[in-house]
Amino acid sequence: MAAVLKATPVTFVAHALAVACAVMVLVWCISFRGGLAWEATNKSLIFNIHPVLMLIGFIILGGEAIMSYKSLPLKKEVKKVVHLVLHAVALILGIVGICAAFKFHNESSILNMYSLHSWVGIGVIILYGIQWIYGFLIFFYPGGNTSLRSESLPWHVLFGMFVYALAVANAALGFLEKLTFLESAGLDKFGPEAYLVNFTAIATVLYGAFVMVTVYAQKDQEPEDAGYSAI
Amino acid sequence: MAAVLKATPVTFVAHALAVACAVMVLVWCISFRGGLAWEATNKSLIFNIHPVLMLIGFIILGGEAIMSYKSLPLKKEVKKVVHLVLHAVALILGIVGICAAFKFHNESSILNMYSLHSWVGIGVIILYGIQWIYGFLIFFYPGGNTSLRSESLPWHVLFGMFVYALAVANAALGFLEKLTFLESAGLDKFGPEAYLVNFTAIATVLYGAFVMVTVYAQKDQEPEDAGYSAI
Repeated sequence: MAAVLKATPVTFVAHALAVACAVMVLVWCISFRGGLAWEATNKSLIFNIHPVLMLIGFIILGGEAIMSYKSLPLKKEVKKVVHLVLHAVALILGIVGICAAFKFHNESSILNMYSLHSWVGIGVIILYGIQWIYGFLIFFYPGGNTSLRSESLPWHVLFGMFVYALAVANAALGFLEKLTFLESAGLDKFGPEAYLVNFTAIATVLYGAFVMVTVYAQKDQEPEDAGYSAI
Repeated sequence: MAAVLKATPVTFVAHALAVACAVMVLVWCISFRGGLAWEATNKSLIFNIHPVLMLIGFIILGGEAIMSYKSLPLKKEVKKVVHLVLHAVALILGIVGICAAFKFHNESSILNMYSLHSWVGIGVIILYGIQWIYGFLIFFYPGGNTSLRSESLPWHVLFGMFVYALAVANAALGFLEKLTFLESAGLDKFGPEAYLVNFTAIATVLYGAFVMVTVYAQKDQEPEDAGYSAI
């Protein structure tokens, strides 16, 4: 794959999709759904924090963290810090986003943890945390020996891709679940809000796909430091 | 990745997950949902054809088609025929499964093509068909020249992985959508049927993940014919 694709042009498409996703989820939650609030009598405003933080905070920042390691024109040690800091911020915003969903449920007397979206979501956030801690310990501080690093790296990439793909798929599950609730409550199935939510989900999936393609694409910078051998 | 994983043991796990998925979707549609029928006054029996054919026919057979090319101890030309025939059967069963969903909607006065699941589903089946036709023409009959084959192969793998991942994610969307409808109509959110459907979806996602891992794993047979260069 690396032979046929350069990473940087793929990241440009991904960045553009990220902007589109961010704008669409904000328009949905602010213009169509009334805005965001941590404390409110209209509990829907608490829920609205959830898709915004999960998409912009978790999926988009997590994707940028993945792409940063391949595409930034910086030294490996600097890129490593950017990679782990962006992933840490994504993880924290993801956890806050999940807390917003629980808060909405609890204050609205809605059951927690019954849906596939909630199950996969909790699984993803735990796996993401494990992946971050393992990566920090082996590749950053205190750091494993050369043999452990080189043996761990393909598994770090494979497991990271699995968890990220699961996160993106779970975002699609979340959009579908919320829209199904809204449509069951009377929202027009072919109205502008339904189209907006579906297109946001499709753009999110495409963003995730482009992010993952960059992992298998060729570096443009630092040819002496190319590919997975850069541990 | 190929350096650290052998394909055949991964396929064993995938086959076991495929059996689990097939049993679970049949138990769901037959024991919990009343069985399958193409013509029925109880229109739900027409719908039940949809998850059975999409999971066993499209996802599982499609996955076996993908794994067959890497794991079967046969000559390349034979494996190529197995690969394309299994994919063709998967595609045909997938199309019939989609027809069952439309038939159920039409006979139950339910709108078509409004949900994310339906949009992604139609997209997947069209992309799967394009991928099959392109693969047939370039790699089987009449077949492109050596240069075109070797340039096409990484794209065939990349595009195939994307479409298959989308198909698996869309299966999860379908399970969530149907279960949300059933729960909105009164099904116990923590009852045995809800757990069965959610576990079927999770097993499906794991099956898809193991199928995709085999693509990047190392062949056990025919070392002279290893990896993506086998065009």
